[in-house]
Amino acid sequence: MTSVLGPVSPRSAEHLAVRPLGLRDAVLTGGFWGRWQQVNREVTTPHALGWLERDGSVDNLRRLAGPHRGLWFSDSDVYKVLEAISWDVGRDPAAGLDAAVSDLTRVLRAAQEPDGYLNSNVQAGHEVQWNNLVISHELYCIGHLIQAGVAHRRGTGGDELFDVARRAADCVVTEFADRRRKDTDGHPEIEMALVELYRETGDATYLDLARQLLDVRGHGVLDANGHFDSTYFQDAVPVREQSTVAGHAVRALYLLCGVVDVYLETGERALLDSALRQWESMTATKTYLTGAVGSRFDGEAFGEEYELPPDLAYGETCATIANIMLCWRLQLATGEGRFADAIERALYNLLAASTSTDRTGFFYNNPAQRRVARPAAATQTRPARAEAPGTRPPWFACACCPPNIMRTVASLGGYLATYSDSGVQLHQYVPATIRTGTVTIAVETEYPRDGAIEVSVLEAGDGPWTLALRVPGWCRGATVSVNGTPWPASANAAGYLVIERQWRVGDRVALTLPMPVRLTVAHPAADAMRGAVAIERGPVVYCLESVDQPEAVDVNRVELCVDEPLHEQVREGFLGEDPILVTATGLARDDSGWAGTGWADLSELPPEVGRRVTLTAIPYHLWANRGPSVMRVFIPAR
Amino acid sequence: MTSVLGPVSPRSAEHLAVRPLGLRDAVLTGGFWGRWQQVNREVTTPHALGWLERDGSVDNLRRLAGPHRGLWFSDSDVYKVLEAISWDVGRDPAAGLDAAVSDLTRVLRAAQEPDGYLNSNVQAGHEVQWNNLVISHELYCIGHLIQAGVAHRRGTGGDELFDVARRAADCVVTEFADRRRKDTDGHPEIEMALVELYRETGDATYLDLARQLLDVRGHGVLDANGHFDSTYFQDAVPVREQSTVAGHAVRALYLLCGVVDVYLETGERALLDSALRQWESMTATKTYLTGAVGSRFDGEAFGEEYELPPDLAYGETCATIANIMLCWRLQLATGEGRFADAIERALYNLLAASTSTDRTGFFYNNPAQRRVARPAAATQTRPARAEAPGTRPPWFACACCPPNIMRTVASLGGYLATYSDSGVQLHQYVPATIRTGTVTIAVETEYPRDGAIEVSVLEAGDGPWTLALRVPGWCRGATVSVNGTPWPASANAAGYLVIERQWRVGDRVALTLPMPVRLTVAHPAADAMRGAVAIERGPVVYCLESVDQPEAVDVNRVELCVDEPLHEQVREGFLGEDPILVTATGLARDDSGWAGTGWADLSELPPEVGRRVTLTAIPYHLWANRGPSVMRVFIPAR
Repeated sequence: MTSVLGPVSPRSAEHLAVRPLGLRDAVLTGGFWGRWQQVNREVTTPHALGWLERDGSVDNLRRLAGPHRGLWFSDSDVYKVLEAISWDVGRDPAAGLDAAVSDLTRVLRAAQEPDGYLNSNVQAGHEVQWNNLVISHELYCIGHLIQAGVAHRRGTGGDELFDVARRAADCVVTEFADRRRKDTDGHPEIEMALVELYRETGDATYLDLARQLLDVRGHGVLDANGHFDSTYFQDAVPVREQSTVAGHAVRALYLLCGVVDVYLETGERALLDSALRQWESMTATKTYLTGAVGSRFDGEAFGEEYELPPDLAYGETCATIANIMLCWRLQLATGEGRFADAIERALYNLLAASTSTDRTGFFYNNPAQRRVARPAAATQTRPARAEAPGTRPPWFACACCPPNIMRTVASLGGYLATYSDSGVQLHQYVPATIRTGTVTIAVETEYPRDGAIEVSVLEAGDGPWTLALRVPGWCRGATVSVNGTPWPASANAAGYLVIERQWRVGDRVALTLPMPVRLTVAHPAADAMRGAVAIERGPVVYCLESVDQPEAVDVNRVELCVDEPLHEQVREGFLGEDPILVTATGLARDDSGWAGTGWADLSELPPEVGRRVTLTAIPYHLWANRGPSVMRVFIPAR
Repeated sequence: MTSVLGPVSPRSAEHLAVRPLGLRDAVLTGGFWGRWQQVNREVTTPHALGWLERDGSVDNLRRLAGPHRGLWFSDSDVYKVLEAISWDVGRDPAAGLDAAVSDLTRVLRAAQEPDGYLNSNVQAGHEVQWNNLVISHELYCIGHLIQAGVAHRRGTGGDELFDVARRAADCVVTEFADRRRKDTDGHPEIEMALVELYRETGDATYLDLARQLLDVRGHGVLDANGHFDSTYFQDAVPVREQSTVAGHAVRALYLLCGVVDVYLETGERALLDSALRQWESMTATKTYLTGAVGSRFDGEAFGEEYELPPDLAYGETCATIANIMLCWRLQLATGEGRFADAIERALYNLLAASTSTDRTGFFYNNPAQRRVARPAAATQTRPARAEAPGTRPPWFACACCPPNIMRTVASLGGYLATYSDSGVQLHQYVPATIRTGTVTIAVETEYPRDGAIEVSVLEAGDGPWTLALRVPGWCRGATVSVNGTPWPASANAAGYLVIERQWRVGDRVALTLPMPVRLTVAHPAADAMRGAVAIERGPVVYCLESVDQPEAVDVNRVELCVDEPLHEQVREGFLGEDPILVTATGLARDDSGWAGTGWADLSELPPEVGRRVTLTAIPYHLWANRGPSVMRVFIPAR
């Protein structure tokens, strides 16, 4: 079986702590993510291709003369769908998908100008080429085209789409390289794409341009005429000096992906340091329990430290995907398990919640509390984007999120494991087959339904090697055995249990990660969650959804009795899964003693009254799949 | 002395519980608001006239052919400044101010089309007349013109500005009246203006049109092409059926002002009922302690019930002013003190905080918590509007708030007192002279520095009459004496202590409103303030500003020891006032035990450590007058 490179395949291993595996070397064999990957390919992909046609995103490229339909960066939606399909066929070829890529590639080739330029909105005359970079998304779109072209070439070996992408990249090189221009795109994205193109071609021109586009930023080169400030565009502070994530969340995190990508190829430590500093600040002070990042509707931006309102959380799906992309690059650079921890939090909570259980509905933004059941989304039309309705719409005018989910799920194998000279590292626990050269292992598990993970050796390789198993940050008391014998190891500083031995075919490693239901509280400076707790079990964040509570219980007026036991309850066939629900004792508060203005003198508080009830919590990712509802992750603690 | 009608002067008293006083019948004679009124006239007015010139708002009207500068509804800024000046000269004539009005009126007359139409943005060719009502603000601007014209005629008896306004109104009548059109402006405002024009002219055409413009709304007549939904424009539900405030806050409240104005003239009870229902819902569940309303940046809108994040509070100054205007109309309709309570909360907190102590800087939006000191506002340029800087800018591209503050302060006398057949009602306690026919009283007080209010009778009138004194909702143990003898009365259901007697010149009534420092908590469903308290004293809300705290105390990491005493401390000359500051014992928390992701297992919480400190709270309205700072109103309770 040929090896097929996946996303983020550095050219040399010099600056890698651990090395990525190809698309056919880490293969999902079932489970929650394996099933999703299959439905992503079979259901979501035709759904998305249909909406690209219906919304005019493909027609914009077919008929450049006509007025451009939809948002001005709609080309990028086409490219991201192409990228998703490319990873799919890279894992597992399919004639139908090949044909879809060929058809779209023909459209792109016809639309592309002789010098390689391609942007349907500019070519339709709505902007002057390269004249309004702060808004136009020209480099952003070409960045996504490059990623699609690289994905397709890696996945299929074919050059059709790749050639279109490379010619577009060369057009950018002609205009921008060697500091011919001092500015850049308002929306970062092309930086990481150019590094991947360098990896694919070996042509350092692309790497140099990526670095240039990082370097020019932070010097006020973008002027949005007062509509947005420099922070919004990550143009206020040079990237090596920036201390925390700020401004538009997706832009900030895409930029940092490019920063780490340039580090991985050049070893420039200041770049890695900046990315680590910003990521640490974000993870400690600007990340929701659900993995949401970017709390503000205003500017789709990061808030200040600990500005994490559950109800007003923006939490754009793309921002969390961008964080997964960043975490993976930092994982490769450092080998540390905290990045896989963050990926796990994002995958099992926000990313899973972003998509309906039938995988054809999507949330653009993801609150951690919904006070009032909003009307269901229309199923045949799509909203602009934010102010999510009560259920997941099928598409958006600003359709960045659905194709981003698709390409992430299609390439998810790439995030499971890595290898190094000493052995194999397992980061995410899903049923999978992992191959590195002469070693092959199989992972079997019901995780996160329970914490039992079994790894069996299918090919043992030559000589001893290490198997490193991530112990998630939330886990206490992890144990491991080899062929039934306890292995006396505890997690190392990077967060891994490491087993070194001479392996034999048929060896079985059993990892046990205890995952009792637990209650989680927020940092005391996170005001919006003061006095409240969240229910978690393993990597899964829970929520109370109104539909599961006893009659006449208002989710806005419950408290959780934190000193009473929590119970697990298996619910087979619940929303197509067999999840474990959690029941807890709560108080259904009667607030009728409050009247008038909503404010009371502390010394005159009305007596608190209510009745004891049993509350039922479901995994957060399953909410809003049974019609509009009231929901909350953080529950006032009694 | 002639009587000069002020804002909201109903044509008949039939539907009034209490009647308003004219501009020269309720005259501020000093104190906080009297001084502000003076500075508003002498400092803020020339400042505003200067910015209207500098920003092109007047030039837009002078040179209709040229491209329109600034926002498309900049005419309304000119009109609101004209209205403010008109109330000023109505109270107290001034040749310089008269000249300013005449100059601007000449500009308007020259710009006005033969049929009365006037809108500099449309006349400059940027919109087709009446063709994009959902966005264009044409009726909104003409509404403000009408209010200015009415104010000027009431204040001066002059017809120059009034004639321009009436001709513009007649142009609207020609286009819209008798249901010739089924649509209306995206931004309510003209409804209340048309009622005032009816009051001034007696021509019922204007009243009928006002009612028509209320009636058409709520039937989806406005289509903003998906950019905003019907709720944003108050076009989703007919106004008589609406149960709570929703959508853009200023629009919702301006509309309700028109609703109550039409009720006051027609007595249609369904209108008053709707306004009361919506106001009660807003006051109990959607109003900040500071009087801010409209919590969301997104759409400048009301959030759901109890969605009141202190840090992300939008709290547009204009929205609170709109609530003051609404409360006053409801006060006239019902005579109930709860509306004066709400006006008091708004005046002493949000409105006072909206303006710098020198009265030339303004906040457009007003958070109740600032986590990070933002850069100071530039003094010579103006920002767009939201995302307030660390101090108050001198003006805004969207300059709705500063002139709104000006017209409110200029006409503040109108909100102090009312009269009825039975006597006089005092609603706000400021040094003032109040005349109603043959009765004149003088109010002397240092309120809210203390709760001693003395009312003396200057003219006693004929026969007995009642003096009604509002007892604020926050007050416990109010007492009153007449000529030194305790008067045995307690507040009635409407919230007033009522004294009926045969009054004599020289009678002195002494009202004492105890105002110990108190701690206030939010409704338990207001999640964002759970576990926190605010300091209040009388009507004044306090805050912690970083500059007042001991060295190295982080306002983001303090807790207030709620069982320990609070101390009052007079600080003379503090920011030009002699306010009472409050000191309290707090804990300066050391959060260094928290590390990593920001989330902790409830059973594994790090020990809480910190040091006892003395915290100093200042009146909220004084914050951000000493450079950028960190600030919070709600303080975690220990």
